Amino acid sequence: MPNRDVLKGDWLPNISVDCVIFGFQEKQLKVLLLKFKNNEVWTLPGGFIGKEEDADEAAKRVLWQRTGLEDIYLQQFHAFGDLKRNIGAIEKHEEINLAMGRSIEDLTWLSSRYITIGYYALVEYSKVQVTLNDVSDDSAWMDVDQIPSLFLDHNAIITKGLAHLRASIDTKLAAFNLLPETFTMSELQQVYETILGKPLVRTNFQRKMLSLDILERIEKKYTGGAHKAPYLYRLDKKKAEAFMSSAS
Amino acid sequence: MPNRDVLKGDWLPNISVDCVIFGFQEKQLKVLLLKFKNNEVWTLPGGFIGKEEDADEAAKRVLWQRTGLEDIYLQQFHAFGDLKRNIGAIEKHEEINLAMGRSIEDLTWLSSRYITIGYYALVEYSKVQVTLNDVSDDSAWMDVDQIPSLFLDHNAIITKGLAHLRASIDTKLAAFNLLPETFTMSELQQVYETILGKPLVRTNFQRKMLSLDILERIEKKYTGGAHKAPYLYRLDKKKAEAFMSSAS
Repeated sequence: MPNRDVLKGDWLPNISVDCVIFGFQEKQLKVLLLKFKNNEVWTLPGGFIGKEEDADEAAKRVLWQRTGLEDIYLQQFHAFGDLKRNIGAIEKHEEINLAMGRSIEDLTWLSSRYITIGYYALVEYSKVQVTLNDVSDDSAWMDVDQIPSLFLDHNAIITKGLAHLRASIDTKLAAFNLLPETFTMSELQQVYETILGKPLVRTNFQRKMLSLDILERIEKKYTGGAHKAPYLYRLDKKKAEAFMSSAS
Repeated sequence: MPNRDVLKGDWLPNISVDCVIFGFQEKQLKVLLLKFKNNEVWTLPGGFIGKEEDADEAAKRVLWQRTGLEDIYLQQFHAFGDLKRNIGAIEKHEEINLAMGRSIEDLTWLSSRYITIGYYALVEYSKVQVTLNDVSDDSAWMDVDQIPSLFLDHNAIITKGLAHLRASIDTKLAAFNLLPETFTMSELQQVYETILGKPLVRTNFQRKMLSLDILERIEKKYTGGAHKAPYLYRLDKKKAEAFMSSAS
């Protein structure tokens, strides 16, 4: 993958990227967050854009650096350009960065104004190997409805990212990116319910999903110990692509 | 309106805004374009973001400066951050700017890399008074399906803006922003058809629109000379807001 070793310092000023990385675990939609080193402040994974790097590549790089994943579902959804997203945060910036042991040069760079481009990623939770960067000392997958007060406007970025994910669930089949290759209808319904934030009627959901003609039923059944073994399904990628191009 | 007199030079580097201003005239969806002074190159209205200005405010300012309109429908839809949107354009930049009689300082600033934030606006065509900026010598409303090759990636920006407009036509009732306060059902259908780029069945369209319960029928009929005078409608703003909050 190109542009992996952008040199420190060789960045565009005043612009950053932030990634809302969604995963699905224990029937919950979760977001991957990092904790600033020697601080109790949590933040979205993010970074700067290399002077010779596409904005989308910068987001891919951040995602790869933090999760080890490539070629995953990644959508730009909004640029956050309000002046006040940084104003008022500068003092906090200083406090955070001093605790990290950062230099004055870093501080000047970091406490300037940034317009950040928000991306959301959908990952298969079990495949993620979180790697901390040099300014983080912890990471956590947090439930979307139990997120603490984050750095800068990162709570608002998650809220907006989730709204965009919800809006694309039908036309872009986004939910399937959160599941492993094979899944039960019940698991699929749980993903939809947690993204939409509301319960769905099982029979209606199943009828709707089957009517889309995008699922392949696998003969081998799930053997997780349930007394009534449910069928496993797999997304038919060709049919899914045909569906998405007709839906958009 | 604040931030109208941002001083020249007091801008964020490497970031710009571009506005796709849609209007509806003669049964066509049109986009407002400007021609660079002493050049045959057409461009979207755009500008830079003041160091003390919100990105959204910069877009509002550009719109107001070019059209004289305030408080209109304006949506940010995508940040265009590919390196190649500027690379290769630098020579053309020089040619264009030399023809305009610009200074070397301006040229250095203008030919650096820009990530541009795309906004689309929906305006009532008849209310627009186009004001040229100091680097334009002509303007035109061009049909969305007859746009010439534009400056940089501005054709791609229009295409993406139109896709976002299409995607929001049902949930955000965007089309109504292109019409005057009162309109016939036939005019409304024409706006939908030109945004969606396809003909719609009249009876189905009318049934669907009336079923949304957002229109108020006005007793006074249209008197434009047709032998069978159609009803005029008006959007009921309260009902429209209730509809949009339930649809999103």
